[in-house]
Formats: sequence, C-alpha cells, structure tokens
Amino acid sequence: MDLIRRLGAVVGPEHVLTDPAVTVSYAVDWTGRFRGSAAAVVRPRSTEEVAGVLAVCNEAEAAVVPQGGNTGLVGGGVPLAGEIVLSLRRLDEIGPVDTLAGQVTAGAGVTLAGLQARAAAAGWAFGVDLAARDSATVGGMVATNAGGNRMMRYGPMRAQVLGVEAVLADGRVVSHLGGLAKDNTGYDLAGLVTGSEGTLAVVTRVRLRLVPRFEHRVVALLAVGSVATAVEATTSLRREVPSLEAAELFLAEGLALVCRVFGLPRPFAAEHAAYLLVECADHRDPEPELARAVGRLGPLVLDAAVATEPARRAALWRYREAHTEAIATLGVAHKLDVALAPGSLPAFVAEVPAVVARAAPGATTFLFGHVGDGNVHVNVVGAGDGDEVDAAVLGLVADMGGSISAEHGIGRAKRRWLHLNRSPVEIDVFAAIKRALDPRGILNPGVLLPPR
Amino acid sequence: MDLIRRLGAVVGPEHVLTDPAVTVSYAVDWTGRFRGSAAAVVRPRSTEEVAGVLAVCNEAEAAVVPQGGNTGLVGGGVPLAGEIVLSLRRLDEIGPVDTLAGQVTAGAGVTLAGLQARAAAAGWAFGVDLAARDSATVGGMVATNAGGNRMMRYGPMRAQVLGVEAVLADGRVVSHLGGLAKDNTGYDLAGLVTGSEGTLAVVTRVRLRLVPRFEHRVVALLAVGSVATAVEATTSLRREVPSLEAAELFLAEGLALVCRVFGLPRPFAAEHAAYLLVECADHRDPEPELARAVGRLGPLVLDAAVATEPARRAALWRYREAHTEAIATLGVAHKLDVALAPGSLPAFVAEVPAVVARAAPGATTFLFGHVGDGNVHVNVVGAGDGDEVDAAVLGLVADMGGSISAEHGIGRAKRRWLHLNRSPVEIDVFAAIKRALDPRGILNPGVLLPPR
Repeated sequence: MDLIRRLGAVVGPEHVLTDPAVTVSYAVDWTGRFRGSAAAVVRPRSTEEVAGVLAVCNEAEAAVVPQGGNTGLVGGGVPLAGEIVLSLRRLDEIGPVDTLAGQVTAGAGVTLAGLQARAAAAGWAFGVDLAARDSATVGGMVATNAGGNRMMRYGPMRAQVLGVEAVLADGRVVSHLGGLAKDNTGYDLAGLVTGSEGTLAVVTRVRLRLVPRFEHRVVALLAVGSVATAVEATTSLRREVPSLEAAELFLAEGLALVCRVFGLPRPFAAEHAAYLLVECADHRDPEPELARAVGRLGPLVLDAAVATEPARRAALWRYREAHTEAIATLGVAHKLDVALAPGSLPAFVAEVPAVVARAAPGATTFLFGHVGDGNVHVNVVGAGDGDEVDAAVLGLVADMGGSISAEHGIGRAKRRWLHLNRSPVEIDVFAAIKRALDPRGILNPGVLLPPR
Repeated sequence: MDLIRRLGAVVGPEHVLTDPAVTVSYAVDWTGRFRGSAAAVVRPRSTEEVAGVLAVCNEAEAAVVPQGGNTGLVGGGVPLAGEIVLSLRRLDEIGPVDTLAGQVTAGAGVTLAGLQARAAAAGWAFGVDLAARDSATVGGMVATNAGGNRMMRYGPMRAQVLGVEAVLADGRVVSHLGGLAKDNTGYDLAGLVTGSEGTLAVVTRVRLRLVPRFEHRVVALLAVGSVATAVEATTSLRREVPSLEAAELFLAEGLALVCRVFGLPRPFAAEHAAYLLVECADHRDPEPELARAVGRLGPLVLDAAVATEPARRAALWRYREAHTEAIATLGVAHKLDVALAPGSLPAFVAEVPAVVARAAPGATTFLFGHVGDGNVHVNVVGAGDGDEVDAAVLGLVADMGGSISAEHGIGRAKRRWLHLNRSPVEIDVFAAIKRALDPRGILNPGVLLPPR
C-alpha cells in the first residue's frame, strides 16, 4: 500500500506498525468499551515527522486518530474504522525548568508522572493531577482539557497551557512557546486547541506553567447532613481558605460499600448522609486556618476528622479514591461524568437514583465527585449498555443547566448527546471552525462532530 | 439611506445616531490618536436587538465597529472609514450575584466599576482591576482580554470568563452562560472570543467568576540594585507568598520625575537603580509572611518601606501610578506595551534606551510595568509619531522572544507589526477562523487582520 510506504519514508519503516497482533493494543481503549482496528500505527519522534505524516495523510485524505497514553474515557483516541493511529508517545522530550518563569516545555508524549518528577526536581509542582498519571500524556491531557482533583485551585489543563506547538491537518506547523503570561497578539489558538480532542490540530509540544510546591498539607473529612450542606460548606471554605485545593464529595452508600469491600474502619461512629473531604496546602501549616473556617460552619458539620501526617492524610483520601474500585466489585459500572452549578447539585443528587431506576430497574447508583467544581461522577451498576441511563441522566443534567461532560470530553461516546448542551448554532460554529482548520476532515473524524 | 431606516426599525430611530455633531465622540479614541467618522451609531439595548442590527448589516455587507467604553489604546473600537458603530453601552444589566457559585452575569455595557460594586455588595470581588474602571465596559474588557494590576494572581479577563453570549456576524446568537467550572462539551468559544477584538462576534453578556474579598492588605516598596534583582525577587516572592497579587517595577529616572512633578518625598534616603512594589491580600494579616519572604532575600533588598494602612498603601502605590501623568508633563508620550520572559527582561530594559536613542535622537525613554507578568510599558517622549521607535523597539522585543502587545491588543495600531510575533501560518489560521465566523468580513475590518 502506497500510503504505508510513504509514511515509512517519513518516520522510518520500523515506526509504521501494521501487524494486527501489534496494532491491536492501539485499537482498544483501556475500558474495553471502544474496540476497532488501525490501518497502521505511526510513531513519529519529532514535530517535523508529525508534520510529514499529516501532509501525507491529508494528501491521501486518510483519516488520522491522534493517540497519547490511551487513557481516554470517551473513545476519542482509538481507531474504530481502520484509521491511521498517530501515536505521539515518542515525543517524550522535556526541557529544563525555567526557574525564573516557573515554566517548562514538554513534548506531547511526556507522561504526567514524568512532568511531575521534572517539576519537583526543580522545586516546583504541576497544577493538574489525576490517577492515570503514569500513562496519561501531556498531549492527551491537552486534547481533553483534563481536570482532576486540584482543579478548584489551579484550573484545568487549559489554565496551565501558556502556548502550544501543533501541526495542522495539512502538515503546516504553528508554534508559540514563549510562555508569556500577557500576550494579546491574536486569537487564543492554545486555548482553542486545548479540549478540541484531536480534531483541530495535533499538539506536539506545550509550554506549561508550574505552581509552587507546598511543605504543609492538611486533609479534613467532614460529615454533613445533606448534599446541600456540603455545597454550602464548600463555598464557605473556598471563600475563607485560599489554600484550599480540593473538595470532594461522597455519600453514605458509597462509604458503606468502600468500608465493606476493603475492610476499612468507619471514619465516624455514626453514619451520615454526606461527606466532604477537603485538602489545603501552604508554606505555613494551614491547619489552624482550616480549623477556624470549619469552626465557623458550626452545627453544619456533624463530625470531623483531620490529618496532617502523610499516612493519615492518605487514609482519609482512601475513602474517596477507593470508590471506583469498590464499585467495580459489584459489576461493570456505566459511568457518567457530569457537572452542575452548585445551586443545582443537591436536587440533581436527590433525583438521579429515581431517574436511573426508571431507566434501568434494578440498577444501583453511586454518586461521588469533585464538589468544588460541581463535578459528579455517576456510576450505575447493572444497567446493561447504559443507553437508557444515558438518555435519562443526561437529559436531567441538561434540564438543570448542567454539563453532560465535565472533564472526560465528548469523544465518540457522547457525540449523540452533544445537542443537549449545545444549540444547533453552536454546533454549526464548531463545524465551521473544524472546516477552517481541517478542510478535508482527516483529524479524528467522528469525534465531537459528525464525520464529514 | 435604506440601511439607516432598517437599523431604526430594529432599535428605534432615536437609537440610530447620524448627526455628526453627536457621532463625533464615538469616532475618536480617548488618546486622540485615532479619529475617523461613523455612518451611524446604533445603540441596541438587548441581545435580540444586537442580533437584528448585525443581520441587517451583514445582509448589506456594511462594516461594523463594536464599541464599549471607548477606552481602548490601539484603535480597535473607533470607526476610521465611515463604518457603523455598534455601541453596546445600553446593555448594562447585571444579574444578581450567585453567592454559592461566586459568579455573576453581566451585560457587555456594564462598567468595571459597576461590576466591582455589585460584587462587593455581595461580599465578593472581581479579579481584574484597571485605571479606566469608570468607563471601561465588560464587553470591551472581554474583547481585549484586559490584564491590569492583579493579573499575576487572578489571570487576565479570559480567566474570569466562564461563558459568553455573543452574536455572530450574520445575527445568529450563541449563548452558554451556565458558568460551569468543568464543561468539556466542545471548543472553547468563550476563550476564543475573548481577546478577539470584536472581529469574530459581538459579546452581549458574560458569565464571570468572582474572587474572595480580603480584609488584610500589605504593600511593600523594595529598593533593589538592578532589574535582574527585581525579577529574581519577584519569582522568589511568587513562590513563597501565595497571597501576592501585584508586583510592579519602576526605575530611578521614573521615580525622580514623579517626585519632582508631584512634589512627593523620596521614599528612601538613597537613590537606587530599581524599585519593586508588591501587594499581598489575605484574610489573615499577610505582613509577617511577606516580611519573612523579604527577609530571605537578604542583601538583595537594599531598602524597604512597608504599609498596611490604606493611606500609607496608597502613598506607596502613588510612586508607581503617577508615572503616566508625570511623563505627560514632558510632552506627548509614544507608548508601547510589551512583555518579555522574566529571563529576558533585564537585558531588554538595559538595551531599550540606546535602541530608542538611535531611532529617535533626543527622545527620552521611561520604563515601568507589571513585572509579575513580564509586562513593560515603554514611554518615549519626543519621538514624533513614533514609527521609527515602534520599528526599533518592537523589533528588539521580537528578537528577544517577547510580545509586541502584552495587554492592549493589536487593533489597527499594531497590525503592521503582527508578523513580528506571529508566523505566516499562524496569521493564516487567524484569517481562516475569521472567515469561518464572519465570512463577509463585516466585524471590525482592519482590526488585527487586514480587511477582506
């Protein structure tokens, strides 16, 4: 096949994989829900090679699926119909930390863990953290505008990206990596590409801001009587404690399951309706400040556990983080990732179980998430393929003004639901921008927007 | 003229101004550098009316210049060739503060001062502040991605904008004002429109994040031996003092002028090469934390004045803020607004006077700015129209990897210099996006990009 030969001429034949036994791992996502096939997997090692690959594919009108660590959750990075997989993992160079600016330039294939290590070695930290840190790559995190646990303090990936180098569909390169905090010289291409799920351009390098490393951390688990109280407490703490960087929510049912599955001690003598887990980090011990702010919440807080030692902090986080694994012991969970305005969150949490029960009788619903961002992960066990649940829950989300995809993106999984959040005019604008940057529609066709 | 009649049918004839004696104030910017004429000034009072106006203008292929408070500095908001001025000032409704989310929805015509007052009344603050607060409007600040004094803590306008309602060139409306912190449902239209200088769409309403109000503030003026030391100290304070929200730089010559013109006492007994003005704000008194961090700078700080009382804080700020007015007493200043990476800032400041002197013999250069963002305002007195100075200084900026427009934008004033910062491919991409959203090129033609 001439295309394969031409791609080999760009990256070297050994970096164009066509053996199905090899390419299969690139053609299935890690949840196993999206499984396809690749015409080939191309592994360039530089921006120039990415440019060469895209020029060849664009000329041939061959569809390309960019892929990083393949940890996406919405089928945005796997080939479903024999596309070319463009693996960015070999673009794993990371520059020196600019210690004056607090910035670093990283290749798309650098893992989050690699980035974090580089930042830490220079006395800095990176503002986004998530569980898939050993596999997730910078390029994929940019493509999906990754969120994670610390977002309420540092913002999502888009807030860390000070500039991108990217290859357009036709192989031309745009590069703006100066990292200037203030730079009003034209449209915000970095922000536009971030979160575009590989449909507008292929990011090859990014200039990232770093954040200070803090020596002192405190974690508090607060028992509260309702989700409404958890929301109110979160707003109050956010206003009063600038060092707050995480606010997580879980409920009685989730905690009971986690304790049962992992044999963990219950955190409090009594059972409570909802639990708020908060973490603060600062150069000074933030515990007194947090304690005062919690004190001002008065009777809203029914019980509290506070930890400053790493092992004790991890033990409190475990109640939240073990939810996914604990739920998995009950069966394959259908997962939704939605966001609501804080004022709508209590009603949403109250209504979801009944809405799910109508859509999938006998299914069990677990809710937890990043309450600081209004982000709720809805996990439904025993719902089959989840189509009915999607329709019911996402419809409820949209009715309440929420987002059907808080942090995972639209990908292929949620494209059919995009109209719930976005008007025909908005989707038209997305398509116009897509056509402007990728007129032949070769980049990730079918992701976010219908294929051309 | 049929167009005028049709516009009158949309907004009411009394809101289509055509008397040159009236429209003249809309056709000159406040610096007096940009002076043109308007075919008419149209003053809609709602998104629907803006939509009607644009539909009429698009059909007639009549060029439209959106205008807010007309405080722009690069000629981006004034008609130069008989365009229709679309004044957004009547869109001055502001919604109630959502105290749970810490957000507010504001019309494009709301002034910054009005927004700040609304936020303060609800116990919150707004993250962007600038001197033109009584005239500058939310819409204009979005269009230019305004920066200002607090940007190092809260980011520019783009970081405050959680969603926009905007009218496309053809009159269609996109509206996404839910204010969700996490919302990965498509391209970042809000971020794209922010900073697009009225060339992609007309913003009519925005959802804005608010920030906590702090009770305690401390201002310190630090005398240092060089710009390099000022930069190093800024990085150090930024890392060690999370409550830091401003870091401003000025030099010996500027301080001497300010003291002479306004009869101010010199802040220190000795004269020093450079001065760093920092401000911290927190719920606790940030003075001890700042003092410790300044103490760790050791001999880098040659002298220091610290103020916590409002009048004393204002007195320290006066040394920095009076620069513009003091320079104006010497003549009309040619002003450049550039940004450099912190590592390049000292060399830039060192080289600029000689570069200016070669371009405009006899001219005097003053430099000051927001060192926390690498943003330097270059003021040149006695340079005539400044063309030679622009070429020389902006060329130097570009050679050093800096931005030729840190916070003012490109407008019409700097369009001819855009190529210094942006490659032909990037400018091509800008133009493709512009064509996708405004195919007839009616929105602010000649701003940022060449007219169609």
